[in-house]
Amino acid sequence: MTEKIRMGMIGGGSGAFIGAVHRTAADITGDIGLVAGAFSSDPDASRSFGVELGLAANRAYGSYDEMFEKEAALPEDERIQCVSIVTPNDSHADASCAALAAGVHVICDKPLAGHLEDALRIEKAVNDSDLIFALTHTYTGYPLVIEARERVAAGEIGEIRRVSVSYLQDWLSRTEDTKASKQAIWRSDPARTGESGAFADIGTHAFNLVEFTTGLRVTEVAAELRTVIPGRAIDDDGSAMFHLANGASGLLSASQVCSGAVNGLRIEIYGDVGSIFWAQEEPNTMTIKRRGEPDQVLRPGTNVGYLSDAAVAVCRTPAGHPEGYIEAFANLYAAFARAVRDYPNHDPAGFVSVTDGVATMRFIRAALNSSRNRSAWTRLNSSD
Amino acid sequence: MTEKIRMGMIGGGSGAFIGAVHRTAADITGDIGLVAGAFSSDPDASRSFGVELGLAANRAYGSYDEMFEKEAALPEDERIQCVSIVTPNDSHADASCAALAAGVHVICDKPLAGHLEDALRIEKAVNDSDLIFALTHTYTGYPLVIEARERVAAGEIGEIRRVSVSYLQDWLSRTEDTKASKQAIWRSDPARTGESGAFADIGTHAFNLVEFTTGLRVTEVAAELRTVIPGRAIDDDGSAMFHLANGASGLLSASQVCSGAVNGLRIEIYGDVGSIFWAQEEPNTMTIKRRGEPDQVLRPGTNVGYLSDAAVAVCRTPAGHPEGYIEAFANLYAAFARAVRDYPNHDPAGFVSVTDGVATMRFIRAALNSSRNRSAWTRLNSSD
Amino acid sequence: MTEKIRMGMIGGGSGAFIGAVHRTAADITGDIGLVAGAFSSDPDASRSFGVELGLAANRAYGSYDEMFEKEAALPEDERIQCVSIVTPNDSHADASCAALAAGVHVICDKPLAGHLEDALRIEKAVNDSDLIFALTHTYTGYPLVIEARERVAAGEIGEIRRVSVSYLQDWLSRTEDTKASKQAIWRSDPARTGESGAFADIGTHAFNLVEFTTGLRVTEVAAELRTVIPGRAIDDDGSAMFHLANGASGLLSASQVCSGAVNGLRIEIYGDVGSIFWAQEEPNTMTIKRRGEPDQVLRPGTNVGYLSDAAVAVCRTPAGHPEGYIEAFANLYAAFARAVRDYPNHDPAGFVSVTDGVATMRFIRAALNSSRNRSAWTRLNSSD
Amino acid sequence: MTEKIRMGMIGGGSGAFIGAVHRTAADITGDIGLVAGAFSSDPDASRSFGVELGLAANRAYGSYDEMFEKEAALPEDERIQCVSIVTPNDSHADASCAALAAGVHVICDKPLAGHLEDALRIEKAVNDSDLIFALTHTYTGYPLVIEARERVAAGEIGEIRRVSVSYLQDWLSRTEDTKASKQAIWRSDPARTGESGAFADIGTHAFNLVEFTTGLRVTEVAAELRTVIPGRAIDDDGSAMFHLANGASGLLSASQVCSGAVNGLRIEIYGDVGSIFWAQEEPNTMTIKRRGEPDQVLRPGTNVGYLSDAAVAVCRTPAGHPEGYIEAFANLYAAFARAVRDYPNHDPAGFVSVTDGVATMRFIRAALNSSRNRSAWTRLNSSD
Repeated sequence: MTEKIRMGMIGGGSGAFIGAVHRTAADITGDIGLVAGAFSSDPDASRSFGVELGLAANRAYGSYDEMFEKEAALPEDERIQCVSIVTPNDSHADASCAALAAGVHVICDKPLAGHLEDALRIEKAVNDSDLIFALTHTYTGYPLVIEARERVAAGEIGEIRRVSVSYLQDWLSRTEDTKASKQAIWRSDPARTGESGAFADIGTHAFNLVEFTTGLRVTEVAAELRTVIPGRAIDDDGSAMFHLANGASGLLSASQVCSGAVNGLRIEIYGDVGSIFWAQEEPNTMTIKRRGEPDQVLRPGTNVGYLSDAAVAVCRTPAGHPEGYIEAFANLYAAFARAVRDYPNHDPAGFVSVTDGVATMRFIRAALNSSRNRSAWTRLNSSD
Repeated sequence: MTEKIRMGMIGGGSGAFIGAVHRTAADITGDIGLVAGAFSSDPDASRSFGVELGLAANRAYGSYDEMFEKEAALPEDERIQCVSIVTPNDSHADASCAALAAGVHVICDKPLAGHLEDALRIEKAVNDSDLIFALTHTYTGYPLVIEARERVAAGEIGEIRRVSVSYLQDWLSRTEDTKASKQAIWRSDPARTGESGAFADIGTHAFNLVEFTTGLRVTEVAAELRTVIPGRAIDDDGSAMFHLANGASGLLSASQVCSGAVNGLRIEIYGDVGSIFWAQEEPNTMTIKRRGEPDQVLRPGTNVGYLSDAAVAVCRTPAGHPEGYIEAFANLYAAFARAVRDYPNHDPAGFVSVTDGVATMRFIRAALNSSRNRSAWTRLNSSD
Repeated sequence: MTEKIRMGMIGGGSGAFIGAVHRTAADITGDIGLVAGAFSSDPDASRSFGVELGLAANRAYGSYDEMFEKEAALPEDERIQCVSIVTPNDSHADASCAALAAGVHVICDKPLAGHLEDALRIEKAVNDSDLIFALTHTYTGYPLVIEARERVAAGEIGEIRRVSVSYLQDWLSRTEDTKASKQAIWRSDPARTGESGAFADIGTHAFNLVEFTTGLRVTEVAAELRTVIPGRAIDDDGSAMFHLANGASGLLSASQVCSGAVNGLRIEIYGDVGSIFWAQEEPNTMTIKRRGEPDQVLRPGTNVGYLSDAAVAVCRTPAGHPEGYIEAFANLYAAFARAVRDYPNHDPAGFVSVTDGVATMRFIRAALNSSRNRSAWTRLNSSD
Repeated sequence: MTEKIRMGMIGGGSGAFIGAVHRTAADITGDIGLVAGAFSSDPDASRSFGVELGLAANRAYGSYDEMFEKEAALPEDERIQCVSIVTPNDSHADASCAALAAGVHVICDKPLAGHLEDALRIEKAVNDSDLIFALTHTYTGYPLVIEARERVAAGEIGEIRRVSVSYLQDWLSRTEDTKASKQAIWRSDPARTGESGAFADIGTHAFNLVEFTTGLRVTEVAAELRTVIPGRAIDDDGSAMFHLANGASGLLSASQVCSGAVNGLRIEIYGDVGSIFWAQEEPNTMTIKRRGEPDQVLRPGTNVGYLSDAAVAVCRTPAGHPEGYIEAFANLYAAFARAVRDYPNHDPAGFVSVTDGVATMRFIRAALNSSRNRSAWTRLNSSD
């Protein structure tokens, strides 16, 4: 048996939702072993949580600086090859740059950073190091999202004319929610979450899903971000019109104050030949509609002949055995692991890249600027 | 048995889709009899079509002017009491004004007119005459659309924060569609359809559905209308952000070039307590979602205890017996007939009014202005 | 304009649910005029209800015997050409035989009769008279049910292997329901409803739907009928295994005591090539599944190219405009009207025939016998 | 960190579908380590596959006898504590008895055995040893299946009157399928699969789901099993009527020859107060219907307040993050692991027990006997 890829983790300490998801996802790949970590800004908490997770005590570090220093001193076939960064947004840049400087590949939770400037800093470090940097935009791990991308690329819905994407939640819909959990606190705090709230947290997922499935960049945006809950210091709701590089129009909404919406990410892509529908809460079906034809409902599965190779490759079970969120997440880790194995001959298109992540941050910046400017159309590549 | 209400029809001659729908809808009410009509701009075609429909030959007129003149000469208990206007948009104003001048109530196909100025002309005529004027925004006739309005009014989803509405079709998605039918021809011709194409044809339905269900006026809009099919003289696709009177945000899209979309009208209304979902293609279910509760799926029926009186009143069969488009349309005619019976003591809120119709035309005008002005936010009540 | 077909009605007096449905259905065809009737066993009630419906006073009769006698005395181009029979089951046979003896075509509510013997009496009268006799198994009027039949006949799902059909309701699920309405009272009374309750009322619909869509006769049945509500004199719930003429297996359930089921008629037909799904409560979609292919979801509409001619012929509106129960019912009347127009050169396959109705009654008899005999397999054509 | 539970595996060698599922499921629990195994009846294949999986070479055994012998010689804190048995049905009994004799807890793939006699042999061994024996009826691991059980137990749908369950597939729908895979071969071979084919393979899942959710035993059955594909030596399709201990009626169908059905397990439970619906292919929703109320749609999630504690306990992510088949399977392993930890003070109701498994085999036997006896009602507890 091949040795597992040796991974460290930064962040994701006790009580963190997404850290646990990342660990399970990595575990399910069967190809990644968590061997080190700096899980908390409190060194003692960090070390004890690492031990609790089963790490060797001497690899449960008090900080990521310590981790990179001490790991570097280990023999090459023992030291970590990569890190997973699952801290709040504000520390993605420092942690990523430290990892890349230490010669370690990075898989990082989304959004890429708290601010565009930090995102650009990461991008530069990735380009300088030529190491692997993957961003976990979860929904790109679903087989049918990959199928959507493949079908669009194959021209099955023709030239894209209109896209509608929304990501609506309700977990911050009340005033008291702002202080109700660790996550809510840092996500509502500009010092931790960065320049945007809901748009950065889930709007970037929606945005990335558009670019991922259509294969087109968003070029400009006319947006309105709002803070619905009084006293909250950051946007919790917003909408945007946007243009794609081919001239298509789109609508995007993202909100964390829409009561009754749980984790409602949904995309519709309309072309001149047909259209595609997918919703995260029922991820095991995708509908293709074409004018004058019956709707087609597709399902994933290792044995499904009508799916693209790329979609089948990320299925785990035959048709009729539903897969969910954790499997999608694990697919991101599997792609990352494959790239680490293949490095430096890996496929750079195999994961959401730092370039894709910078695009999400340019979107946030442009949306914020547009919103401040009475929703004026704003280009994403404009200098700010 | 009471005598049926005597109705004339203007437009809706041979081959017209919507004229036949209006006649069936009126017929289903059991309370309206079609006794006269001017069905075509060609007097001979008009007369022969009227006879074909079973009218007395002397009441199958060559023009609506002739109809109003000759009907006025009939005894009061024989002459028409109302007309249904189902011509292309450009003639709604003249026909309506002629009818009102003749002392005849009007039920008119949407949109109210081809241009805002014509809409305002109708509004003035209605106000001056004090007669009944109802606009057939079909979807307000569905029991569950009425239920949505009642639930919102009762506060069941709380203060509205966000609305999303879309009305997407594909029957004009190809170049050759522009000339493929009578309907397509006039709807693509600014001289007949008026200042807008898709936005006027179906965008007004979407707009009216928002105002009808939320009970709130749209105050301003940032819109982008486009002509996707080369050579078409008018918008066939567009989107808008909008604000409601209470400060809520909304997104609206309307398109007739989205392949795979058939008659896709759908609305989502999010409040601080819950949210409501309804889609025209599955009109017999409405979903209410509230944070932390199971979703509720409502169905119509004369015997459904959990529905509002207003919704039950427009059901025809017990629960489990689906009703559709024609029944919704018939409900508009039934409401109109009731108003005619009760006149002048009718309930002015019992139908979509000329005021509601003017609002749709102000929306069109504001959307067009916004679109020409790089999607700048534009107030609906602005002078133009 | 052609004169409408002149129809009389037997039964369907004040408060009757199904009588009103029949009248609306006939009316929607635009080809049938109700000109006479005997609506109640109480002659005065019958006459006054007829006048209330708008009949000429001298054609609102006190009994159907009176109707047939007096209509026969009218000129041939005035007298009724057909009757609609909407009485409780026990009087279908006498009324039908009287009508046929009077030379009048018959459209009759289901089930064909209260007892098999009565059904056979009707069959003989039909055969002797050679007049038209149509049975209103409503669900055969839905466009997509017709499409299912056409697809099966065209071999699109191959040789049928298994059918599952259920028709579950809850309107008799409580003890107090037995006496709660006119309908409940007669349907729970063996003297009026006949030898079976739920199986006759809705089980026959399910049975007919199987034979209609598969084009195969049911040959034998192993059934269990039960009376769940204490004190009720007749079955209110039951299930059956059955065999089709080609050897396929099937399951049927029918119940009026399943709380939460409203009007839940659903059929699934599995073949060696594919399968078909349709449910009455969402009648505007039908799904076809084939091994290794995406599911196909079909929708009705006058402009839908992928539908069979037979299905398109019964649509009223273009795709995306939902049709429902009343339209399905109207399609039965339209088919009946067409047959009356074409008589004696009508298509005998254009409606549910007396032979089909006798099959439903043989099913009831066989199911009852099987049930009494510990669910022994019982042939439908066995003598009893 | 606590040491993981040390598990061995019997069966599940190269290419086996279900063995891999079991290993992933055990892995996801985070509480079970696979440390030994006998994966194939070919000793060399067994050993090399074990090494491939990452086992220590000296614990990749040539047979399970060897495994039990050599493990017993290891120190108590090193030797296996339990085994997972994932062989074809015919060897469940021998392997289980060997494990229990070795003092090792067992988790075994379904159905319990190939024949009822073997099942009874396992039951005796379990009772004699007093060790833990859990059966992996996968679908009992879904949160909403557990919720269904809890809702029924709490009386939320009242007294159960009718149950409908079906499990239909198409992977054996063609003649050539019988020889198309290892799995197909042994499942079609009475010497390996036992006395039944489709009914044992998936009918037992359907049966167990009924008993699990209703909390009631099936008492008698009237069944018909068939072999649809010529040349196949065992049933591949069948249906049954059944009775529950409270007198309720039920229908069950199971087939592997229904084209278009993929992994279609679905259950409907009707009571006198309401009804419950769940389908495996969309496992993240369950519907509760009550007469006169809106339908309720429930979703799983760690933060869902309206769910029972038992359902929440098996969720992994907050609401809106779909979970699937592997997670359900992992829940069975987690329950098994918990029982192993708590042994001998474990909760015997925490998993599908040998008693439940014997009930499934009595069902198979009774269904076969009934089928041979022209579907006569047959009691499950009858001596055979």
